[in-house]
Amino acid sequence: MKIDKLEPKKISIEDLAIFCKRRGFVYQSGDLYGGFAGFWDFGHLGVELKNNIKKQWWKFHVVQREDIVGIDGSIITHPKVWKASGHLDSFSDIFVVCKKCKKPNKIDKSEIGKVKCDCGGEYDEKNAKEFELMFKIRVGGEESYLRPETAQLIFTNFKSVQESARMKLPFGIAQVGKTFRNEIAPRDFLFRSREFEQMEIEYFIKPKQDLPYKIPNEKILVYSSSDQEKNKEPIKMNFKDALKKRIIKNPWHAYWLAQEFLWFKNLGANPNNFRIRQHNPNELAHYSTDCWDLEYKFPFGWKELEGIADRGNFDLTQHEKFSKKDLKIVDQETNKKIMPYVVSEPSLGVERAFLVFMFDNFFYSGNRNNVVLKLNPRLAPIKAAIFPIVKKKKFEKFADQIVKDLKQDLNVVYDRSGSIGRRYARNDEIGTPYCVTIDEESLRKNDVTIRDRDTKKQIRIKISQLKEKLKDLIDGKIEFERIGRLVV
Amino acid sequence: MKIDKLEPKKISIEDLAIFCKRRGFVYQSGDLYGGFAGFWDFGHLGVELKNNIKKQWWKFHVVQREDIVGIDGSIITHPKVWKASGHLDSFSDIFVVCKKCKKPNKIDKSEIGKVKCDCGGEYDEKNAKEFELMFKIRVGGEESYLRPETAQLIFTNFKSVQESARMKLPFGIAQVGKTFRNEIAPRDFLFRSREFEQMEIEYFIKPKQDLPYKIPNEKILVYSSSDQEKNKEPIKMNFKDALKKRIIKNPWHAYWLAQEFLWFKNLGANPNNFRIRQHNPNELAHYSTDCWDLEYKFPFGWKELEGIADRGNFDLTQHEKFSKKDLKIVDQETNKKIMPYVVSEPSLGVERAFLVFMFDNFFYSGNRNNVVLKLNPRLAPIKAAIFPIVKKKKFEKFADQIVKDLKQDLNVVYDRSGSIGRRYARNDEIGTPYCVTIDEESLRKNDVTIRDRDTKKQIRIKISQLKEKLKDLIDGKIEFERIGRLVV
Repeated sequence: MKIDKLEPKKISIEDLAIFCKRRGFVYQSGDLYGGFAGFWDFGHLGVELKNNIKKQWWKFHVVQREDIVGIDGSIITHPKVWKASGHLDSFSDIFVVCKKCKKPNKIDKSEIGKVKCDCGGEYDEKNAKEFELMFKIRVGGEESYLRPETAQLIFTNFKSVQESARMKLPFGIAQVGKTFRNEIAPRDFLFRSREFEQMEIEYFIKPKQDLPYKIPNEKILVYSSSDQEKNKEPIKMNFKDALKKRIIKNPWHAYWLAQEFLWFKNLGANPNNFRIRQHNPNELAHYSTDCWDLEYKFPFGWKELEGIADRGNFDLTQHEKFSKKDLKIVDQETNKKIMPYVVSEPSLGVERAFLVFMFDNFFYSGNRNNVVLKLNPRLAPIKAAIFPIVKKKKFEKFADQIVKDLKQDLNVVYDRSGSIGRRYARNDEIGTPYCVTIDEESLRKNDVTIRDRDTKKQIRIKISQLKEKLKDLIDGKIEFERIGRLVV
Repeated sequence: MKIDKLEPKKISIEDLAIFCKRRGFVYQSGDLYGGFAGFWDFGHLGVELKNNIKKQWWKFHVVQREDIVGIDGSIITHPKVWKASGHLDSFSDIFVVCKKCKKPNKIDKSEIGKVKCDCGGEYDEKNAKEFELMFKIRVGGEESYLRPETAQLIFTNFKSVQESARMKLPFGIAQVGKTFRNEIAPRDFLFRSREFEQMEIEYFIKPKQDLPYKIPNEKILVYSSSDQEKNKEPIKMNFKDALKKRIIKNPWHAYWLAQEFLWFKNLGANPNNFRIRQHNPNELAHYSTDCWDLEYKFPFGWKELEGIADRGNFDLTQHEKFSKKDLKIVDQETNKKIMPYVVSEPSLGVERAFLVFMFDNFFYSGNRNNVVLKLNPRLAPIKAAIFPIVKKKKFEKFADQIVKDLKQDLNVVYDRSGSIGRRYARNDEIGTPYCVTIDEESLRKNDVTIRDRDTKKQIRIKISQLKEKLKDLIDGKIEFERIGRLVV
């Protein structure tokens, strides 16, 4: 059998959207009525991929760590939260129109008087309009808002969580949940939408507390603000070296940037498509003293995946001031009360991670002329497809039993129709890592053939071992070639 | 050692709320600012319990079935969806005040002129006010709504999902997600809030299609509408018998009621606290031709957990009419186009399930004077607590390694402080099913003691087997007494 080499396939964001719609990953919300800009519905495969991304994020950031616990705050909360956080007074965009080319655009408040249109024309700043980015809502008699970030729910619950989970600094609080921003111009498929899901950690330390963890030995493209100013290219270097050379000044930032990069890399993203970029002083959010973005090379340019920002103690101090409640915690070493600092807040959009894993795993099989989605088995929506090679009652009954047993623990499908080649192709296209076929021999010998999506290799294995081996393969605990006897 | 028998402990909803706050399960949202009625934040244990409930629901209803696939629709969608569904015109409550006792109350439109106040007085219906239950929101230039139910996202995506997942009738589409209702009077802790999470299936059949599944052999209290009229008590009977006796008329309803009951029972809810109750004709929603509620005996009375409603083809027909798009599907047997019927829509609030599992697992240990939360291990927020019996460096280092290894796959904690008794009690109270202690012998023999939360029995086990045995215990694949050598 000819080995079928897979080639990475570059596709545009528009083509990805078409693929996602056709294959049941993502639909435009309200599609029946012409669609509703900035809102997306995840289909039967999209919901599984999205859930797997969230599950893996939670495992890496919460379950596997001793220093982070999770919460799940409400989307609508007390309006004073948004007053204290500063969102109510400053979370808005300025909408301007170019005097020359008449194109509308969105700028930041800090850019007024500074920036010009791409065509070189000046913006009509007299007629600039301010757009509140928070969605307003009336609850009972009060005006409230849909949260524009998950972070504030972490800050308002900080003291309660610290006490009931008995956390000691340094520690983090994680949250995954929906967030809403009334974007003027949602665009680029899932990249900028009005409703999205954030996976976020606020990581608290004592002021100037040392990093107790090792910085992983990993390389990445580093783009400092001074290199950006001088129009230099980013340089590939080790996170540790970037710290030694004082490009990254805070060891905590180096640590968290490396963690976040590693999360993507371990789940099968292409490390060459990532870089870290330092914010310029005028880009910094109102609460932040330093910020690095983990960026990804999208088909439409390098864009932010997550910001690793130093928020200081701005938020807790604000909530203390507005609520008149003591949010400080007792330092067990000195017995003094301290207000913790947020040294970093890894904050990632689920949908942006979704795009990364789609783009980096989009491959093409030259021989067989179809898409192969090389998703990491932990992320793949369907873990295995099972099909009888012959369409006969006795095979189908036999396959039924296998599917039923596997489905107790794994999301597998029973694929009944079409030629074997067609069934392989269909499953390659949606990222199913393993196909299990049942043939004449299976009935006599109680074994089946498993085929690996990426190498096309096939192995014969006893049915009694099938579930455990599949689980080990999915968890990356065993290599495919070691699960049994290679037949192709 | 004296066997410590656990007694179920009945507590009020108010006491449960206090317990949940103190132990880090649930906080009132915006608590710092006096709280925001109807909104709740889940703490570090609550988020794990909630996620486990959702995971088990998805596993039972989606992963383990061949006939149901999931989706994840947006919270805000095209406003025409709510016009077509009828919500925009009729999803409201009537707010009235009693002429006699002056108490305000919420009634349904259909009750105007029919119902009286509990005190016997008449309502002042002239001054009745109508309250829109949907939250309004402005998106760009348009007025839209936060979804008041997840179901419509299933109907609007019905055709796309059916096509991309190649589903054949009968089949279901499942969804888990946030829902919002502007309740006039949120109450009873998590029971009636303004923001909550639904786990829902819309199950589609051909008109009059037969049930191809067996009805489980389970008994439950059955409360028919005629028994309610005659003020009779509900009768305990088998779902099959209720169907035979034509109390439940539709086999699909009997099947789904039994499934939903079984889901609770298998996860450790007390079957004696459940009943099924038929809606009276005047209770039926505008779209429904028959409806049964699965009810639970809360401390504040029998209340609805989920409705198993026959929605007919109302929704799909409405969307077809309003969108002018063909939503019928081709019947592969007859090649004719048909509009599927929704024969049932199991729809359960995550928070209501949360309350059920809390109430039914709230036990009290007389000897040791503390709460034991007997949560099913699959639902328990923390799967095991690990602690060295002596507070010495060498034990702690040894324990560190064990915790690190377990945490790769399981949500375990390292509990360092307090007496052993205190540590057991602390973990019993939050539902941790297993405690693992490390003693002098552990260092020499590489083994540990596992203690079972419910029986207090202790078993000695090799560290090399610890993770696999814990996994099997959590999944219910092995009994505690069979994992090793019983020591207590």
